[in-house]
Amino acid sequence: MQDSTATNARDAGRAAQRAAEARPVRIAIDAMGGDHGPEVVIPGAAMALQRHPQMRFVIYGDAAQVEPLLDGHPALKAASAFTHTDVSIKMDEKPSQALRLGRYKSSMWRAIQAVRDDEADACLSAGNTGALMAMSMFCLKTMPQVERPAIAAIWPTVRGESIVLDVGASIGADASHYVNLAVLGAAMARIVFDMERPGVGLLNVGREEIKGIEAVKEAGRTLREANLPNLDYRGFVEGDDIGKGTVDVVVTEGFTGNIALKTAEGTAKQIGEYLRSAMGRTWRAKLGYLLARPAFDALRAKMDPSRANGGVFLGLEGVVIKSHGGADVKGVAAAIDIAYDMAHYQLMRTIRDMLDETPIATAS
Amino acid sequence: MQDSTATNARDAGRAAQRAAEARPVRIAIDAMGGDHGPEVVIPGAAMALQRHPQMRFVIYGDAAQVEPLLDGHPALKAASAFTHTDVSIKMDEKPSQALRLGRYKSSMWRAIQAVRDDEADACLSAGNTGALMAMSMFCLKTMPQVERPAIAAIWPTVRGESIVLDVGASIGADASHYVNLAVLGAAMARIVFDMERPGVGLLNVGREEIKGIEAVKEAGRTLREANLPNLDYRGFVEGDDIGKGTVDVVVTEGFTGNIALKTAEGTAKQIGEYLRSAMGRTWRAKLGYLLARPAFDALRAKMDPSRANGGVFLGLEGVVIKSHGGADVKGVAAAIDIAYDMAHYQLMRTIRDMLDETPIATAS
Repeated sequence: MQDSTATNARDAGRAAQRAAEARPVRIAIDAMGGDHGPEVVIPGAAMALQRHPQMRFVIYGDAAQVEPLLDGHPALKAASAFTHTDVSIKMDEKPSQALRLGRYKSSMWRAIQAVRDDEADACLSAGNTGALMAMSMFCLKTMPQVERPAIAAIWPTVRGESIVLDVGASIGADASHYVNLAVLGAAMARIVFDMERPGVGLLNVGREEIKGIEAVKEAGRTLREANLPNLDYRGFVEGDDIGKGTVDVVVTEGFTGNIALKTAEGTAKQIGEYLRSAMGRTWRAKLGYLLARPAFDALRAKMDPSRANGGVFLGLEGVVIKSHGGADVKGVAAAIDIAYDMAHYQLMRTIRDMLDETPIATAS
Repeated sequence: MQDSTATNARDAGRAAQRAAEARPVRIAIDAMGGDHGPEVVIPGAAMALQRHPQMRFVIYGDAAQVEPLLDGHPALKAASAFTHTDVSIKMDEKPSQALRLGRYKSSMWRAIQAVRDDEADACLSAGNTGALMAMSMFCLKTMPQVERPAIAAIWPTVRGESIVLDVGASIGADASHYVNLAVLGAAMARIVFDMERPGVGLLNVGREEIKGIEAVKEAGRTLREANLPNLDYRGFVEGDDIGKGTVDVVVTEGFTGNIALKTAEGTAKQIGEYLRSAMGRTWRAKLGYLLARPAFDALRAKMDPSRANGGVFLGLEGVVIKSHGGADVKGVAAAIDIAYDMAHYQLMRTIRDMLDETPIATAS
């Protein structure tokens, strides 16, 4: 994969990266996204700034709502450039509608545009996923070697964390898209887990080579034969392997990935409800609960979705992070931490390098 | 759907059913299936018999292993006809291999054949799913109105239980297969939940009509327009709706359904491990655990997969139940309970009636 487009893209990326290394990480924020808007996003940014005091922000949103909040967080205000925007994308807006209403002028678009114009190294929005992806594709463009962008989630496992992608951007996939997803996920894993050769599995209905969808089987053969330097292909994994942490990166297409993610979230909530109801049923259980309270709190923190908040859009010419719409202040801060890591540890450069090293026919 | 094939099938079904009503429910058992074989299957059957003393069994397996176990359960022995078989299907046998080696003579085949020959009203195996489905399709045949059979799971939810199908028989689906699955699942729900018009949802990546796979959207339109008398179509549901029990029947194709099921099992195990480790970490937590022990036991029982053990094969000309390969005695007994209910409450007749009432072009 050494055609001129890829090489130019890589060189451009490296040049941008060299420039980026000289300055602090800059995050563009869509303050108007999410169920709670600036009330949660601004304090979330303030919390993230405490952890990375050298971070800088460019913030977009409605001045009447955002400015009073910034006044309440002077450290954040000092580290930020704020721009008023008239249009906010609603959570239930269709992507096409969002593009029509919000292109060029919404807080969401402007945050993405800041990445495109190199005014920020990554952007964050808690707004509606479909609109954010549509605008990101329109504004930043998809990388030349990538068919369609994907959304990657960081998934807590019994061994730590894994990356699961795609959790909802692309519906359906052919073999080359699965291979793309594997490379994108491995690049992200290098950064998130700081490992040279992450273990990658293709999600399937059985471990045997003969099982499953033809495109998955073909992608498996391609990855096995390619034996890539930065991607340790481990074969098929099943649904229960995700929580076990069998591999560092679990690859599937967006329909199945989205349903797997939401099914796991639903199951965790369901068990939480069982547990609450079991612990409140008798005095003995209530007393036991009180004694074991710190353990329960630790468990709750471990199951807390805000810990792993932040879907990473992969395959675009820039870093876009989607915070959960219902995220609280801690959740938004966690998503900004992810944005920081992706920018600081050079996700774009890693992806470009790995795509260049992949001797596999991909989209062009 | 009143063509002669369907009507004949229905009449034949009803005639068989009238005959069946006059006698006790008869279950055919493949004693050799599962990770533990007859050691678990035979005591499981004995346990189920205690709950339904009028049940009768036809049991197939290796005499050297099965007969001593039957001697240890005299009530079961008295209620059973045992036939020795030479061939047992291995858990890792490929379906094609299983058919080649086990057709006509394996314990699995003979149990299915007993249903075909009207020597049993339902059959049960804990053997390998692919082999059991291949043999069932070969021996019993798929119903004329059904494209491909499906496997339905009974899924515990915060509101009780739901039926989820397909959890692994068919990979991929067109709109008419989704409609078939909806009707098959609703028929099963009528029996399991004893309700006239179960609520049915199509699993998708969002609730909006515009989202998801084209075949799912088309099936949704068909089901909405059909407005069936015995199926209350409620639109799209998402992964987290399964555990919430939003609908009685969740419809998806086998790839996504299998991954959703295993992801939920994996998440439940993962949280169980978190909980165990949290409760063992300090003396205070340990003491709390001891006090709350009965509550934990109740929780464990609720999360116990053996409670809902038993995948129901739907769309075949006969009732086949698949017990989990790793099921214990209680799990096998639970699966036999399901087989009993399906036979006693006339699953086949319900399915035939509902397919006849479905004014939708389906396979013929």
